[in-house]
Amino acid sequence: MNSQRVGILGGGQLGRMMIEAASRLNLQVVILDKPVDSPAKQIEATQKHIEGEFKDPAKIEELASQVDVITIEIEHVNAEILASLEKKGSIIHPSPSTILTIQDKYAQKLHLASHGIPLAEYVDIPDRAALVAAGQKFGYPLMIKSKTMAYDGKGNYVAKSEDDIDAAMKALSATPLYAEKWAPFVKELAVMVVRRANGEVRAYPVVETVHKNSICHLVIAPAQVDGVVAERAQKVAENAIKTFSGAGVFGVEMFMMEDGELLLNEIAPRPHNSGHYTIEACETSQYENHLRAVLDMPLGSTHMKVPASIMVNILGENSDMEACYKPCQEALSVDGATIHLYGKKECRAGRKMGHITVVGESMMQVQSRLKPILNAIEPGVERPLTLQPLVGIIMGSDSDLPVMKVGAKILKDFGIPFELSIVSAHRTPQRMTDYAHSAATRGIKAIIAGAGGAAHLPGMVAAMTPLPVIGVPVKGSSLDGVDSLYSIVQMPRGVPVATVAINNSTNAALLAIRIIGAFVPGVLDQMDAYMKKMEAEVMGKVERLDNVVSSLYIDEMFNGELLY
Amino acid sequence: MNSQRVGILGGGQLGRMMIEAASRLNLQVVILDKPVDSPAKQIEATQKHIEGEFKDPAKIEELASQVDVITIEIEHVNAEILASLEKKGSIIHPSPSTILTIQDKYAQKLHLASHGIPLAEYVDIPDRAALVAAGQKFGYPLMIKSKTMAYDGKGNYVAKSEDDIDAAMKALSATPLYAEKWAPFVKELAVMVVRRANGEVRAYPVVETVHKNSICHLVIAPAQVDGVVAERAQKVAENAIKTFSGAGVFGVEMFMMEDGELLLNEIAPRPHNSGHYTIEACETSQYENHLRAVLDMPLGSTHMKVPASIMVNILGENSDMEACYKPCQEALSVDGATIHLYGKKECRAGRKMGHITVVGESMMQVQSRLKPILNAIEPGVERPLTLQPLVGIIMGSDSDLPVMKVGAKILKDFGIPFELSIVSAHRTPQRMTDYAHSAATRGIKAIIAGAGGAAHLPGMVAAMTPLPVIGVPVKGSSLDGVDSLYSIVQMPRGVPVATVAINNSTNAALLAIRIIGAFVPGVLDQMDAYMKKMEAEVMGKVERLDNVVSSLYIDEMFNGELLY
Repeated sequence: MNSQRVGILGGGQLGRMMIEAASRLNLQVVILDKPVDSPAKQIEATQKHIEGEFKDPAKIEELASQVDVITIEIEHVNAEILASLEKKGSIIHPSPSTILTIQDKYAQKLHLASHGIPLAEYVDIPDRAALVAAGQKFGYPLMIKSKTMAYDGKGNYVAKSEDDIDAAMKALSATPLYAEKWAPFVKELAVMVVRRANGEVRAYPVVETVHKNSICHLVIAPAQVDGVVAERAQKVAENAIKTFSGAGVFGVEMFMMEDGELLLNEIAPRPHNSGHYTIEACETSQYENHLRAVLDMPLGSTHMKVPASIMVNILGENSDMEACYKPCQEALSVDGATIHLYGKKECRAGRKMGHITVVGESMMQVQSRLKPILNAIEPGVERPLTLQPLVGIIMGSDSDLPVMKVGAKILKDFGIPFELSIVSAHRTPQRMTDYAHSAATRGIKAIIAGAGGAAHLPGMVAAMTPLPVIGVPVKGSSLDGVDSLYSIVQMPRGVPVATVAINNSTNAALLAIRIIGAFVPGVLDQMDAYMKKMEAEVMGKVERLDNVVSSLYIDEMFNGELLY
Repeated sequence: MNSQRVGILGGGQLGRMMIEAASRLNLQVVILDKPVDSPAKQIEATQKHIEGEFKDPAKIEELASQVDVITIEIEHVNAEILASLEKKGSIIHPSPSTILTIQDKYAQKLHLASHGIPLAEYVDIPDRAALVAAGQKFGYPLMIKSKTMAYDGKGNYVAKSEDDIDAAMKALSATPLYAEKWAPFVKELAVMVVRRANGEVRAYPVVETVHKNSICHLVIAPAQVDGVVAERAQKVAENAIKTFSGAGVFGVEMFMMEDGELLLNEIAPRPHNSGHYTIEACETSQYENHLRAVLDMPLGSTHMKVPASIMVNILGENSDMEACYKPCQEALSVDGATIHLYGKKECRAGRKMGHITVVGESMMQVQSRLKPILNAIEPGVERPLTLQPLVGIIMGSDSDLPVMKVGAKILKDFGIPFELSIVSAHRTPQRMTDYAHSAATRGIKAIIAGAGGAAHLPGMVAAMTPLPVIGVPVKGSSLDGVDSLYSIVQMPRGVPVATVAINNSTNAALLAIRIIGAFVPGVLDQMDAYMKKMEAEVMGKVERLDNVVSSLYIDEMFNGELLY
């Protein structure tokens, strides 16, 4: 379709997954990498690949002479050679100047800071004295980082006190250093951003990354964080990538603080481990979008096509290849799991041998599907994963709580994540407005609002959200709840409130579950089971009553002696 | 992971997509096919493939000597050779006897009929007289088919009257024939079924196929048919495949009659064009499941992971390669579209050059996304595609229609497919029970039930479906609708009805749309826009009133002269 040829520096798993995408578009890809059977070369048989170091100037020139555009799958390349080739007319994406800036993590910080991107405080460390001063300025723990050649936690040192400074300088003696103020984050987030040569950028959803021994372990998509924070994270990532030149996919890693503040941690100028999930879970994978970007083709949609996904890395434990494939054997029996092995010929501790992406109809389902796979990696270890609420329960006053908590219990029993709070139409009108306006963005699927008397809360919330709002009329001291019922149900045309019986928050919760169940088959099955159980319970009572009746004389029944 | 080696007879696009799946599992695949650069060979560089006809006994033996299991990507193979290899101990899937039966479409019919699978009536045609007799027995049009070597409509002849018989016999003179009674189907359906060597079968969702010039044009997944019929189609397909021996994926094509009756048309003993969509739309693709089946690995989930998908084939129009890629150029700008090109070196009319799969959050969205792609294939031609209803509107009596049709209009305006019918709790209790029990299976997401007076319909339906039920109290001649309201809203704990205001079917429809919108972002956006429009309309009235007020003297206002 597109007759342009792409050269890639590096033939590892990222190059391999780029080739998967390239083949589907009939694109020609030539790999420069040392092994003849590197992962990427294995699945592209139409080209004569180049054998050599991807830092070797002569080999890079050889590659450049054969292709229309050069790109990278690793940032530790010889950016100076690339810059000189670019001067001679080669097209290279991302641009060598971008690679050069990002390769040096301190230069990266300076660049991002100059464009107003939020970062943890940082300082150059030319010598020991500077490090001591940094410790005094930022306090401990103090993060000390190599400026260059760092990956998977290598090149980072956490000094717990001034006593660690000499050890840190020794451990990181190979490269120049800088120090960062410790960021006490609550979650690590990442956003893949694709940038077309013409400057157009598109962000993928915000994901949550979970690291183990400083190596990416899990990638949870979408991140289970407030959707308003997620939108902000996408914006920060897009703004950061807009400041660089050239095209391609960039991985942007961030820290999320307790209060929702975001600090950009670092950027990778290429497809990234935290974007593997896009192959199964997004409308266009990061690999295909990388190729589209560097070839100046229209960018593909970055939206998720499935409700939820978690990726888990398959790392070597030692040289035993079979051992590290145990979680894959497990994954064969897990619905929604897709195994990606990279065809690596040797295994060693910490080496990325493959990954597994699990998708599902809900994050609840994906977390539960993931369990046997995680158990095969770390038997018996449970890592608690969070869930964003799907249902919001609000009420005008804590006096409504005895009525409303019954519904909350039902949601809990069904395993539906929910939030519960007091939002009063009359006493906290601004809070109500904010709540209603943000609910859909935050990821809420249905709102249950309980109110008594004038009972404006459900209707007012319904007026400010496009989500379904369920109203629970709470019985007050007069009028027996009829006041609340009329106030909630008799909404004007245009703004519906799904009204349930007076004081019946049970039914409100069950209705919210039915709404979720309409689109999440597993939840519909739960509702089916609930209804069958209810039927069985009543049938049990029928039987008990029948037994009582048959053991009694009719006379005794009518004498009021039946004590059922 | 699995060190077994798979040999495939045939190296076309089906083999290519098998290799895509194999590489991710580190499986070794050897292709036997004539061209050195056949589509499948292009993306597997770790093996020395075999150059030769996949019918050549010597070449098949050479392949058998190199691999652990042999499978096929085309059924027109030399099944006798495979049978003799199997006798000598080679493992071949599906089994040569299965291939032999399926290759001969008449033998296939006999086999299926002997197992009670529903088929159109058919008869052997050894000679002209038999054909004349068949025409007299089955009537015209009469379908005349080659028993062997038929594909993409080749080998079929539709005789319109006895006058066509000689032409038919001439056109199909190369192979033995049989005739089939014409099946006046309303839709063509297909189901991919995977069968593991141990006999376990799993059916993929039922899809709808749309043919153009007897070649597959579109595959719509899931089929837009009643879900109860779809369940039956899966069952028929599973039962058919259970009757064969050996492992692999099978494509089962069916006719759906006006009354929902299903007739099996034919079976392909391999991955199939109507299963391409599974790569993007299902939890495990047909290609991966084919490999798992023939290697006796656990089967993967066959469920869809996206709500809706349509595949369109990219066919050559003539020898112009670029012309046939026009729809792909278009697809680059279509969200949710994934392009698969097969790397074929030459183009010709009707040749399958690639396909595009479009996925989306709803079938409405997928149909609309598909439009520019179809327009690039056939400019100006609109093929009407159907949509299954997502909302059911029911009412106890046609006297409720004036109230209920207002809501129906809203659904129509939002483009939400719905059904509308009379279901009475008291007069048609069995119909109500059937309706409620089948609603979820049929694909309904929410039920709107209107009722007056005793108004039992919403609550009774809610008692027999796990779906959300919205109740509209219809005002009767007495009690002003309060009777209906209380009857609908005051449901016992356990069975919720989402009650809206008296006679307010508008709000019932808007609530159903909000329920869909909670899980279909495009519909939520529509609801947002609707609310903004409503606000703007009222703001317009505000402005008009303000203008009137400012142009009047206060005195005139109080004199009742304000005629706004």
